[in-house]
Amino acid sequence: MDESRTGEQSPAGGGDFRVEHDSMGEVRVPAKAKWRAQTQRAVENFPVSGQHLERSHIEALARIKAAAAKVNAELKVLDPDIAAAIQEAAAEVADGRWDDQFPVDVFQTGSGTSSNMNTNEVLATLATERLGREVHPNDHVNASQSSNDVFPSSIHIAATAAVTGDLIPALDHLATALERKSAEFATVVKSGRTHLMDATPVTLGQEFGGYAAQIRYGIERLRASLPRLAELPLGGTAVGTGINTPPGFSAAVIAEVARATGLPLAEARDHFEAQGARDGLVETSGQLRTIAVSLTKISNDLRWMASGPRTGLAEINLPDLQPGSSIMPGKVNPVIPEAVLMVAAQVTGNDTTVATAGAAGNFELNVMLPVIAKNLLESVRLLANVSRLLADRTVDGITANVERAREYAESSPSVVTPLNKYIGYEEAAKVAKKSLAERRTIREVVLDSGYVERGDLTVEQLDEALDVLRMTHP
Amino acid sequence: MDESRTGEQSPAGGGDFRVEHDSMGEVRVPAKAKWRAQTQRAVENFPVSGQHLERSHIEALARIKAAAAKVNAELKVLDPDIAAAIQEAAAEVADGRWDDQFPVDVFQTGSGTSSNMNTNEVLATLATERLGREVHPNDHVNASQSSNDVFPSSIHIAATAAVTGDLIPALDHLATALERKSAEFATVVKSGRTHLMDATPVTLGQEFGGYAAQIRYGIERLRASLPRLAELPLGGTAVGTGINTPPGFSAAVIAEVARATGLPLAEARDHFEAQGARDGLVETSGQLRTIAVSLTKISNDLRWMASGPRTGLAEINLPDLQPGSSIMPGKVNPVIPEAVLMVAAQVTGNDTTVATAGAAGNFELNVMLPVIAKNLLESVRLLANVSRLLADRTVDGITANVERAREYAESSPSVVTPLNKYIGYEEAAKVAKKSLAERRTIREVVLDSGYVERGDLTVEQLDEALDVLRMTHP
Amino acid sequence: MDESRTGEQSPAGGGDFRVEHDSMGEVRVPAKAKWRAQTQRAVENFPVSGQHLERSHIEALARIKAAAAKVNAELKVLDPDIAAAIQEAAAEVADGRWDDQFPVDVFQTGSGTSSNMNTNEVLATLATERLGREVHPNDHVNASQSSNDVFPSSIHIAATAAVTGDLIPALDHLATALERKSAEFATVVKSGRTHLMDATPVTLGQEFGGYAAQIRYGIERLRASLPRLAELPLGGTAVGTGINTPPGFSAAVIAEVARATGLPLAEARDHFEAQGARDGLVETSGQLRTIAVSLTKISNDLRWMASGPRTGLAEINLPDLQPGSSIMPGKVNPVIPEAVLMVAAQVTGNDTTVATAGAAGNFELNVMLPVIAKNLLESVRLLANVSRLLADRTVDGITANVERAREYAESSPSVVTPLNKYIGYEEAAKVAKKSLAERRTIREVVLDSGYVERGDLTVEQLDEALDVLRMTHP
Amino acid sequence: MDESRTGEQSPAGGGDFRVEHDSMGEVRVPAKAKWRAQTQRAVENFPVSGQHLERSHIEALARIKAAAAKVNAELKVLDPDIAAAIQEAAAEVADGRWDDQFPVDVFQTGSGTSSNMNTNEVLATLATERLGREVHPNDHVNASQSSNDVFPSSIHIAATAAVTGDLIPALDHLATALERKSAEFATVVKSGRTHLMDATPVTLGQEFGGYAAQIRYGIERLRASLPRLAELPLGGTAVGTGINTPPGFSAAVIAEVARATGLPLAEARDHFEAQGARDGLVETSGQLRTIAVSLTKISNDLRWMASGPRTGLAEINLPDLQPGSSIMPGKVNPVIPEAVLMVAAQVTGNDTTVATAGAAGNFELNVMLPVIAKNLLESVRLLANVSRLLADRTVDGITANVERAREYAESSPSVVTPLNKYIGYEEAAKVAKKSLAERRTIREVVLDSGYVERGDLTVEQLDEALDVLRMTHP
Repeated sequence: MDESRTGEQSPAGGGDFRVEHDSMGEVRVPAKAKWRAQTQRAVENFPVSGQHLERSHIEALARIKAAAAKVNAELKVLDPDIAAAIQEAAAEVADGRWDDQFPVDVFQTGSGTSSNMNTNEVLATLATERLGREVHPNDHVNASQSSNDVFPSSIHIAATAAVTGDLIPALDHLATALERKSAEFATVVKSGRTHLMDATPVTLGQEFGGYAAQIRYGIERLRASLPRLAELPLGGTAVGTGINTPPGFSAAVIAEVARATGLPLAEARDHFEAQGARDGLVETSGQLRTIAVSLTKISNDLRWMASGPRTGLAEINLPDLQPGSSIMPGKVNPVIPEAVLMVAAQVTGNDTTVATAGAAGNFELNVMLPVIAKNLLESVRLLANVSRLLADRTVDGITANVERAREYAESSPSVVTPLNKYIGYEEAAKVAKKSLAERRTIREVVLDSGYVERGDLTVEQLDEALDVLRMTHP
Repeated sequence: MDESRTGEQSPAGGGDFRVEHDSMGEVRVPAKAKWRAQTQRAVENFPVSGQHLERSHIEALARIKAAAAKVNAELKVLDPDIAAAIQEAAAEVADGRWDDQFPVDVFQTGSGTSSNMNTNEVLATLATERLGREVHPNDHVNASQSSNDVFPSSIHIAATAAVTGDLIPALDHLATALERKSAEFATVVKSGRTHLMDATPVTLGQEFGGYAAQIRYGIERLRASLPRLAELPLGGTAVGTGINTPPGFSAAVIAEVARATGLPLAEARDHFEAQGARDGLVETSGQLRTIAVSLTKISNDLRWMASGPRTGLAEINLPDLQPGSSIMPGKVNPVIPEAVLMVAAQVTGNDTTVATAGAAGNFELNVMLPVIAKNLLESVRLLANVSRLLADRTVDGITANVERAREYAESSPSVVTPLNKYIGYEEAAKVAKKSLAERRTIREVVLDSGYVERGDLTVEQLDEALDVLRMTHP
Repeated sequence: MDESRTGEQSPAGGGDFRVEHDSMGEVRVPAKAKWRAQTQRAVENFPVSGQHLERSHIEALARIKAAAAKVNAELKVLDPDIAAAIQEAAAEVADGRWDDQFPVDVFQTGSGTSSNMNTNEVLATLATERLGREVHPNDHVNASQSSNDVFPSSIHIAATAAVTGDLIPALDHLATALERKSAEFATVVKSGRTHLMDATPVTLGQEFGGYAAQIRYGIERLRASLPRLAELPLGGTAVGTGINTPPGFSAAVIAEVARATGLPLAEARDHFEAQGARDGLVETSGQLRTIAVSLTKISNDLRWMASGPRTGLAEINLPDLQPGSSIMPGKVNPVIPEAVLMVAAQVTGNDTTVATAGAAGNFELNVMLPVIAKNLLESVRLLANVSRLLADRTVDGITANVERAREYAESSPSVVTPLNKYIGYEEAAKVAKKSLAERRTIREVVLDSGYVERGDLTVEQLDEALDVLRMTHP
Repeated sequence: MDESRTGEQSPAGGGDFRVEHDSMGEVRVPAKAKWRAQTQRAVENFPVSGQHLERSHIEALARIKAAAAKVNAELKVLDPDIAAAIQEAAAEVADGRWDDQFPVDVFQTGSGTSSNMNTNEVLATLATERLGREVHPNDHVNASQSSNDVFPSSIHIAATAAVTGDLIPALDHLATALERKSAEFATVVKSGRTHLMDATPVTLGQEFGGYAAQIRYGIERLRASLPRLAELPLGGTAVGTGINTPPGFSAAVIAEVARATGLPLAEARDHFEAQGARDGLVETSGQLRTIAVSLTKISNDLRWMASGPRTGLAEINLPDLQPGSSIMPGKVNPVIPEAVLMVAAQVTGNDTTVATAGAAGNFELNVMLPVIAKNLLESVRLLANVSRLLADRTVDGITANVERAREYAESSPSVVTPLNKYIGYEEAAKVAKKSLAERRTIREVVLDSGYVERGDLTVEQLDEALDVLRMTHP
């Protein structure tokens, strides 16, 4: 069996690289690097962005390698000692101890082969060091696998972990914060606004309840798409057929990863779909985009409600977090909602990238994998982080300007609406316009206009009809 | 009760308009129009695109109006005769008999109030003609409703109907066609391709099975989002509070529409979310976009497999549908896959519009409703139509170039892959390169290179390993 | 020479179709149709959207055909009588007299060959009728041309015409309306708003001047991209080489179309770029998207400034155009800005479609042409229409609530800003906060806080510093 | 004048933070940090992405601060010693010596105030250390400025620098490489392909010439938009009015930055447009997106031409850069074009983010600035890097498979096209079909079909017509 690693060191004095080789020849690698020839080639081939795989992605790759080594040993594909050494090394990589050994750029070969080989090489080196005899990146660490099934599987694992472990809890945290405010503001009556124009009253609590519902639906959306996100191409190897994989391998590896991570992972129902397309990631990205849309609506409403203090709506107050202007003293701005809006714009753009990349597959493989991974995992992470931030630094500290809100409710000409049933839509429109033109209340205009005298309604009915809080729970 | 309609006719000789009025004053309306003042104002206010509501959307509006009239009568809000007249008129509108009476542009007020009033006015006129006494657009046809709950509800109903009644069956039809071909091509072995480069063999049947799976997942995606698409804001009226709606109204109306249409409709769980946001439509649009991504992959694969006839891959033949060139005689092109690709691009753009519009809501109402409706319903319609077309005019008629496909499979240097387990990855790489460089088969190179002599493998093992069809089902 | 047209009629009794044939065989065509076999095949092959080419696109195709016939005659490729008959027929088509003879769906073959052949066939029929002897769609009308150069050229011509003839004038009209208001509102002082929070004063005129500038920049953007939009692939024929085109043909045809239309058309500098890519259309679409972004900002500002009348900002009044609510009497909404916002969302989505399609070309031709044409030309048309509408129905009628605006300006705590130079940023922040907390004016707080006594500033300096109108022109 | 900095150290033993204060109170800052209170607040407020400003962005901020200090001294706003200290400190920051002192997250306040204050604070500290007396972040470093004009100006400066200094040269480098190959391949004749189907011949040189033209147009696009990109809001301060700025300040500062950087910078023509909108950045992002579209077309063509080696088109060879598969030995993939495609997808998504953010401004300020900056500057950087990579690692090393290419050209049935003028389109179509069906050459079929006998053409004419290289330059 061929050696991929010569052990040759650079000459004394230089001391800072060693020579490795792979199936294409020799490569000089930094002397202390745990990676080997193919990683080094990739480092040199792709000086594009300076961005690397997300941490959660490296962890997912390591989890697969650990499980594969275990199962390969059980299936007699690997020597148990080698398998054990790989598993131990992989556990360290999964824990984040060797992140600096993953230097390959995101913008690399579209299959992620360079990152898969980076993982194989680092684990081979760590396992070799541990075991005292050579562990080969392809023949041992990558045994029964291909980049083409491992790398997309690692994206699905990382995304499933991030969605279920980070984002859904963060959204739940935000929804809970909004629900608390909804209860707190249950009787804070204010003017509704449609088309930005004065409408019939609502309570601030109803509005916050609506925001909470948006977020809860966001969780439902993620859960609805999870069955397809959690399906793994693993076992398809090179082209979906599972060539070079022993029977039972993929099911056992997936079960092992699921056990180790607690994630609801499953094997792809069709391995050709599972490698030729990345539709499950595009779908989840679409759901993230919908959550970004929800957060945009909520953040804009909060910003507008808090606008002022003197020349805006000023219905609520957001907590002061930092000075708002380098020139206007005393100004405080809705900085967290702004950060949320920027994250929403980023997630929307990331979604475009994911969909563009997702549509670009040909035949047996989509080769836009690393850019999909980067954008999808970043979107999950950003949404999780700002959702918690929005809950903790803004929503929790919101207070209502109760009197101003009620004043608004009572001054809206739309409070005439309940009178439709007594005097009809068109008479009510006349009352509303008269009230505005003469700057009088709806009540005054109605009393002056003879409706009571004509028997259209009684004064008691009028007062009941004009009770703004009652209008919010008709 | 006020009259919205004077009956005044234009003077003899002119004869082509009549005067109507609404709460803002008088308007001249074409004499034969069934619509009235507010529709006419909207026609004049919005000469933007010349595009009107989708047919399915008008139907959905009429369904709501019919059900509302029925329930309003049951709840004693409306005179039963008026209600019956409205119901009968609405049935005609739902059937498409009065589509030419809906002249309002898509790009109108963002609440769709103009289209809701158009519906109210046409139904009022038709019901008035039928009943012989005045039926009022607001006080009768729109009773217990608001544009703000009716119009978004009509989008959800139309979209639910189109998704379940048109698109899912069309996708099922396409998946079935692909599955038939998958079975037919089960033993047509060909070279797999990853990165567009020669890979290990697959069968054409496996590829078509993958395409079918993509489409079947598309159906799952739509079903996963359906619960949120099928929730209706109806009952929230102006701002979500349900002002001016009698108890029990919305539940009864939704039940009635569900009964009449057979759709799985439900009332919104939170009426403030249901009017302030349109996230359920954004979500469904995202699923349509994912389906567009699937169709893009499939169409591109089909085009490339059929490329040639002499200078392309030429693995399959698509049915000839029309001359392909106005200058190059005898040329035939993959025109249906091209139409599918253009639909996919359109759906992707429509999705951007829907998401942009969906994020633009403020407070108690999203006022980008008509543009959301247009884009979402158009996407569903286009996808349904091209899915059937792709099945019937292209997939059904595909034939395989069996020999050429097998030739490809056997000539791919990647058939060396099964030898990894006998001679290791790096030796196998040398064999592959030698085979390419010397234009000899993998088998010849292996036999010449001493592996058999060295006992790495026997000739029998070699021949079994190099059986390309066997490689597709390892 | 072969006849493409048998003249055979359907049997007596049927009477409603005739038999035509093309290079693939016979086709039944409606008896009265001016189109022939290939158009009919396309009608049957593409029942997708029901949408046809834009009017301006048909005109552009006809302009090319007229010019080509003229030049072909000059170059002795065509009999002068045939050429004259084609030119006359094309003039009628360009004028819109035969639009109903263009029944082919937008979602057709990606080269637009079906629409090019539709044009060829209709012109052949009209010219045949006129001339009394057979004019052939390919050999005569299409002489020296290919769909592959004619169809993309027609998109560039139609877009150049629409941009220069419709959109730029409409934007100029809107900018002028905004500039008039900027002058009118030159001394209407109001509070600036940054982060939606009270900032230092501006005039309403300054704001409208900014909007006008956005629109004027939009015109600059279109003009900056025009040189590439106005370049035509004409002359490249099938694959860019210009096969089957006589020397001088393309230059002469382009000169003739330029003469007839008055457009600044030019021949592509590289015919392989000009057919393989559609980047010039993608670029222009990007500029339209930027204009949509500008209109979004302007419309949102107008909506917010007009919000109220009682519970919003209420700085300006928009003209009342129609009743705003089917349930809330007297409500009037900013309907034109809403229509503008929806157009902007549509243009943004159309741009996604154009870019997606523009990236999908392969080798010698982009075959997403009709969908690019539809989206680009629709975007131009929608933007032109709403720009005029916004000017005429909204901007022209805006009035300012001068007193309320000034009140805002004076109450903003940011009027403290000019005091930075007297008392420093941090002291000024203290003054602003105290003013807010104690609901007193900045002036009062400054006078009470000893700054004058300490000699930081005089009362005169204070009053000059706090003059809000002066602050807008420091 | 107030001190923002106490100099107080954390108690002995702790030693790792100090106490700073700002207008909102005290903040604990890491002892060694050059930043102060507001930066620290921002670090704590925005734990969102872990991503910071682009290097070029920090440089641009420092350039403005240096120029502002210089001009402030000239205008007697600042003490010359303080100004000099700020300038020297800013020079160091511009050079990248203090990048680790810019820890604020991209997703922060939407005005970038936190990053502007970060710059002010770091410079204040460095200048204080240098000068030996206190330099104040707001009153000195930020004198005559506001975040609202400085921060967007810094984006325009950084983008102008990156576009003119990095991207345009990189695109020129790529275009030149493509042009070299175009010359090298000038006589390599091959089959054209339209709709992926065999078309009339082209030369490989013509194709590469088309790619070069796409890139050259990309440079034109950037230059066409540069006048608007290079306009700076500087001088508008808080809301566009230029409050607190001395006369002549902005012109002098911009002139100074232009001098120092060599960039063609100009002052905004309308300061309200310049702060309320970011349309100039949206426009440039659209141009970058168009360049991404160009690169997508080119990369896909290269990948397909190089597909194979045995089962693809195999017209050209790309340089081998790294082993292509972890399972399929000997496989080499088009990894650089794949990286380019992923960059193109990223730029397309970044553009969506920029446009979404660009449309989100309100009144006197767009508060989505940092996310716009990040996406725009990243796009420029990625495009510049991969353009060079594509030139150096792929285009430069491409070789042609000349014989295979010619074989394709001669076997394409579309070589019949030049015969149209002798035998007409429909007869030519019959020849092409017969040739395909009988697997004979076009020449053979023509000779056998009696056209020569009938006098349609001579054998000499036939041979000239069928010369494939001649067809490429008709």
